[in-house]
This record gives sequence, structure tokens and C-alpha cells, in this order.
Amino acid sequence: MQQMEATLAPTSSTVAMNTDTRIYLDNAATTALDPAVLEAMMPYLQSHFGNPSSIYSYGRETRLAIETARKSVAKQLGTRPGAIFFTSGGTESNNTAIAASIRDLGCRHIITSPIEHHAVLHTVEYWAKQGSVGHSFVALKACGEVDLEDLERQLAEQQANGVRCLVSLMHANNEIGLLLPIRQVGAICQKFDAIFHSDCVQTVGHYPINLSEVHVHFISGAGHKFHGPKGCGILYVNEEIKIQPFIFGGGQERNLRAGTENVYGIVGFAKALELAMEHYERDSAYIQELRGYMRRRLEETVPGIDFNCNGDTLYTVLSACFPKSEKTEFLLMNLDIRNICVSGGSACSSGADIGSHVMRALNRNDKYVTLRFSFSKFNTKEEIDRVVDTIRELV
Amino acid sequence: MQQMEATLAPTSSTVAMNTDTRIYLDNAATTALDPAVLEAMMPYLQSHFGNPSSIYSYGRETRLAIETARKSVAKQLGTRPGAIFFTSGGTESNNTAIAASIRDLGCRHIITSPIEHHAVLHTVEYWAKQGSVGHSFVALKACGEVDLEDLERQLAEQQANGVRCLVSLMHANNEIGLLLPIRQVGAICQKFDAIFHSDCVQTVGHYPINLSEVHVHFISGAGHKFHGPKGCGILYVNEEIKIQPFIFGGGQERNLRAGTENVYGIVGFAKALELAMEHYERDSAYIQELRGYMRRRLEETVPGIDFNCNGDTLYTVLSACFPKSEKTEFLLMNLDIRNICVSGGSACSSGADIGSHVMRALNRNDKYVTLRFSFSKFNTKEEIDRVVDTIRELV
Repeated sequence: MQQMEATLAPTSSTVAMNTDTRIYLDNAATTALDPAVLEAMMPYLQSHFGNPSSIYSYGRETRLAIETARKSVAKQLGTRPGAIFFTSGGTESNNTAIAASIRDLGCRHIITSPIEHHAVLHTVEYWAKQGSVGHSFVALKACGEVDLEDLERQLAEQQANGVRCLVSLMHANNEIGLLLPIRQVGAICQKFDAIFHSDCVQTVGHYPINLSEVHVHFISGAGHKFHGPKGCGILYVNEEIKIQPFIFGGGQERNLRAGTENVYGIVGFAKALELAMEHYERDSAYIQELRGYMRRRLEETVPGIDFNCNGDTLYTVLSACFPKSEKTEFLLMNLDIRNICVSGGSACSSGADIGSHVMRALNRNDKYVTLRFSFSKFNTKEEIDRVVDTIRELV
Repeated sequence: MQQMEATLAPTSSTVAMNTDTRIYLDNAATTALDPAVLEAMMPYLQSHFGNPSSIYSYGRETRLAIETARKSVAKQLGTRPGAIFFTSGGTESNNTAIAASIRDLGCRHIITSPIEHHAVLHTVEYWAKQGSVGHSFVALKACGEVDLEDLERQLAEQQANGVRCLVSLMHANNEIGLLLPIRQVGAICQKFDAIFHSDCVQTVGHYPINLSEVHVHFISGAGHKFHGPKGCGILYVNEEIKIQPFIFGGGQERNLRAGTENVYGIVGFAKALELAMEHYERDSAYIQELRGYMRRRLEETVPGIDFNCNGDTLYTVLSACFPKSEKTEFLLMNLDIRNICVSGGSACSSGADIGSHVMRALNRNDKYVTLRFSFSKFNTKEEIDRVVDTIRELV
């Protein structure tokens, strides 16, 4: 990974990055911990180790660190500290929101989409199998956009039958980058008194989110997607609703999430979000430019290349469809051999070797080989050039 | 915290410890991260950040780190890597074991004890309220020891009714230190075809545990109780049983625990357990001696003092009962003012201000004020002297 161009260098915290020749274009899977975030975590990895639940002053030190982190996260997201709960990550947050909607909020039907993350899809499947809840998919348009009319029609039908719904739709798709019109979906859910959960793992830390302006009951975020630590996420719980814990035990997180707090993770999450929002304008412009540059260079270089989502998408993700051929089928592997990290589907489903459920749902599997390039502030134009040149050699 | 005596210094990794005047005798609540553990974690907090689920070689680096950690943990615990699953901590592990026993293993009755950790008690209460399962407490003897005859009687009764039981009993009580005869309990469970879960959060990393010699289906451990990181625990799942995930999503942890892995936490857990077992003889002898020394000094100093558990207890915990008086009632607070960290009940229940459920169950609340002193390899005799001298002044 190379040093960034001086003029565009988006943050000052680029020291200590790996300077080998690896090019990492899989930032939607996970990101490097920002050295400034690690620096904020270090005191809690060294001297400040007290249990935040202990009543003596040493415990209060770490308790204060957690509550300061909570206030900071709440402020960045336009909500109150009482609505922010720290979890072990986005997946646990999604599981908590779905379980609570069924158990505590009376939802008897879940409307979701076939291109959600497995953390939502498999959780919904589990609950449906238990017989606790029905579920259906909202219709998608050609590129994966939610058909809002179909959503409204389904909600009306359930409401007519006296069934309360949970709508779980991700803010941005992790594979193709498509963005959900979250305010519109929130307004529709409000109209039908539905609970609305949005997996925001790809957008928290990447976009300014003002929760006071969105009608949403739950959102999930994960620190490691925006240069924060792995093992720490958040669940936003709208203060209008009251839910039980998903993990039972001690009284941590105001009785909502038991278990000794991951203090360093929490401190790191808050610091990463602060940095991300402080430098949002600069970083997002820089990354957007990288993405556009790569897209143009790929169009010039690869005949017949197409891209998923031409509309409103993440500035961090470029989902490219290479016409299927003997050469493109092994593109991912051949890039890996050349020390270039990109992704097929999402990291979480890559082990399964059955291709991406998102691409299948969008009927993209037959004619195309899809690669996801995803960018961070630590990438450079020189890296893009090297990747495109390598692809040219390979296809 | 002072330097340890040279002759007894149990590990070489005592650098970077806080050298202020604080005395930390609450190691059953949480422990300092061992600098050698942090050192092992650092590469994964800095350069090795790839997503272990990614298929390219950079992801395989972190995947290898996780699998190496799993092998190491399995070896230390006398079991196979396939039986070890990493979680976000002991509480999640307990929740997983209990949920799985009910949902996947056909348990319809839970036998536990009133002095279990809340991570077990509140989880059992939740499932019982759902109507999924019955539950009962095993009879306890005067000091909290499980009445094995009563356990056997209850299991026989349930078996006669065709009801499969889950027995959930902690290996060591976190407040009074009492140890469970885990092999005997395991043998009884085996006799009645019951599922046996043991919360081993206070013993993993403190005792050699050979799982090949115990009939147990689930054990839970937490890294931060033995100088490992917060936010990472393990669940041992006996390979004879098959369970579903508790947290659904991606295929991590061989489809048993979804969510991007806390790589640094996992690496740190394994390193902490390796160190703990490598130095077990020396560290445990050292801590045992500190505990005995403190007990003798308290007996000499405080008239009428008593101790919970005179039998088989943790060498790390000394639960002292001070005769109730105006002076002893504020002992914890007054020690805190003098920078001495000890605990009333457990940290996890300290926020509730209703006293310890363990002391209530043992009828210890009326006449005594209980303080839990818990020790680590980083404590010294000089610290014990200072604490006892301070207590003498206060009572």
C-alpha cells in the first residue's frame, strides 16, 4: 500500500500503514484500523482495565469512557445517548433487532428482500422456521431497487389482516452498493405502523446519518467497516419502543446487552466514527474520485464490461460485471496471486462457494463474473492504475 | 501497583503495569491485559487486518491466526479444535449453551442453582417465562455446595416423566469461590442422559482443565478473567452434540457463530491461556500464598471475621464476612477512597444496589458485610499488608 497523494491525503493518520506491495480494494469486507483509533484504544488495552460495572472509582473510569463514547456516537448520528447500545458487531445487532421485533413488539410478519445480508436473511429464516412469524420478499426492480409500491401493497394487505409487520431493509447493499431511499421507506412504515429495521453496516461511518430525521426503529453499525475495531458494533433502538435483551445476564448497557463491556472496542468505535464524520467531505470526495477513475479506466480497458447499479450507490463500492470467459472466471484468483485483494460476493458468503445470493437474485450469475472493488481513504490512483493494468493483462 | 517480589515473580511479563498507588484486588471481576498478550495482539491491530472470511491470501492470513488460536485453546483444554468456538464473551457463551439445549437438544427442564451468575439465571428465567421449559434449583448445603443427592433425585424424577434435563452449574462461584466437583456432576448427568453446561469463566485460565476426562457438553470461558482481552470468550461444544447458531448470519465459526471475527480478541485469548497454563504451577502457588497470607492477617486483625467457603475453593478468591456495624457497612467505599479496589458481590450485579443474590441465597446478608478480595499474579504481599492495615484503621 502506497502513500497517498499529498494534495488529496484525506487524514493525517496514515502512518504505520503497511507499505508492502499489496493492494487492498476490499474495504466493504473490512478496513484497516486507523492508527489514530488504535492510539485512542491503547490506554484501555494497557492501564485502564477496570470493570465498568464495578462501583469503585477505578471501574467508574472505564464506565465514563463508555458513556463518553456513547454520547459521541449519539451526537454523530443525531440521536440521544439513551438510544445507542454497544454490541459485539453488526450481526449481533441485526439478530437483536429482529428477535426483539418478534418477541417484544408484536411483529407477526417480516418483509425483507432477497439481497439482504445473511445476518438478516438467515435470522429471518430461523424465526420463520420456528413458526413465530411469516415472511415475504419485497419486489425488486432490475438493478435491485426496492419497489416501494409493492412494499406499500404488502404492508396494506398485512394491516388489513391485523398483522403487524417488521420491515428489514439494508441502507446500502454490501455487494452492489445500491442505496435505499431510507426516509421514504421509513415514511411508508410509519403509515402502516410497521417496525422498521435497517442494516446500516455499510453506511454508518460513511455518510452523515441524522436519525432525528428518519422514521426508523433499529439501525445496526459495525466499527470495522470504517477503520474502527472488529468485535464492536452498535444497535440504535428508537426510544419510543421498549425491548428485552437478546443476550441475558448482568445489567450492562442499561440491562439491554449483558456481558462485560469490550471497553477498547467501544472507545475505538466512537473514535473511528468521530474521525469519519470530521473528515467526511474530504474523504468521500477523494474516494468518489477514485471510484469514478477506476470505472472510466475499466470501461476503456475491458470490452463489454458492465456495472451493477447506475443509480444511487455507495461511493465506496464499484461492482463490475465482466463478460464470462475462460479468462475472467479465474480473475479473482489471478488478482490474488498478484497481491491484489478484491472480492467476488461479500466476504461473509465467500466460503460457501455457491456464488453470491445477491447476484442470483438479480439474475447476474449466468453471463457475468462479478468483482466488487471497494475503496478507502488509504487507496491511491496509482493502485487503481496497477489493478487495471493487471486486469488488462489477465483478460 | 507495585513490582512483585523477585523470588516469586510468576511471569516475565510484568513490564508496563501501572505503577501508581492503586491496589487492585478485584481480579475475579476483570484482570489487567498481560503486556505479552497485547504484544501478540498488536500485529492484528496494525498490519494484519484482512477479513478472515475473504478467500484471497490476505484473508487467509487472519483465518490462519484464528485456526492456530483454536488449536492452541483446544490443546490447553484437552479437546479437539472442532469443539472450540469463539464468542464475544462468557455471557454470550452461556446464552448460546442454554438456548441450544432447549431448541436443539430437547431439554424441557433446567436444573440450576440460586447462586449461579446472572448470565445463567436471567437466561433460564427468560426461557422459563417463554413457557419453553421448566426449571428448578438444586438444594445447596450450608456453604453453597451442591447437594449431589438432591441433584440425582431431581434428575431421576424428571427422567421418570420422560423429561430431558439441562443441568447448568458453574465450575466455581464468582462471589464466594466455591468449586463444583465437576467430574462427579458430569457422571451424574451422564447417568440420567442430561445435558451438562458449566460456566467455567472463573476457572478457564486458572486451572488445568482436561475436557477429555469430564462428561460435559458445554463450558464457557472469558479471556478478560485471566489477563486476556475483554470482548472475547469461548464456548466448548462437545462434538457428540449438534447445535444451531445463537447468532445467525455469515458462515463464521463453522456456521455456529456469525459475525466478522474479533481477530485480535481471539489471538489474545489463546495467548493468555497459553501463558496461564505455562506458568500455572508458579502463578497458582504464588497467588495461593497471597490469599492465605491475607486470610491469616485478617483473622489476626478483625475480631469476629468469618470467611465464606472453608472447603474446596478458588485460590484466587477470598470472600470475607465482616460483622455488620456502622463501620463495616461503608468499608467498600472507604477502601475505594484510599485507592483500594475490592468488590461486594460480583461486578455484574453491583449496579443494582440490592445486595448480592448469592449472599441472599446463603442467608449471609443479615449479620455480615461481605467483601470479595480476588488476586492475580500482579499482586504483592506489600499490597496485602497495606490493605489489611487500612482495614484495621477503618473498623
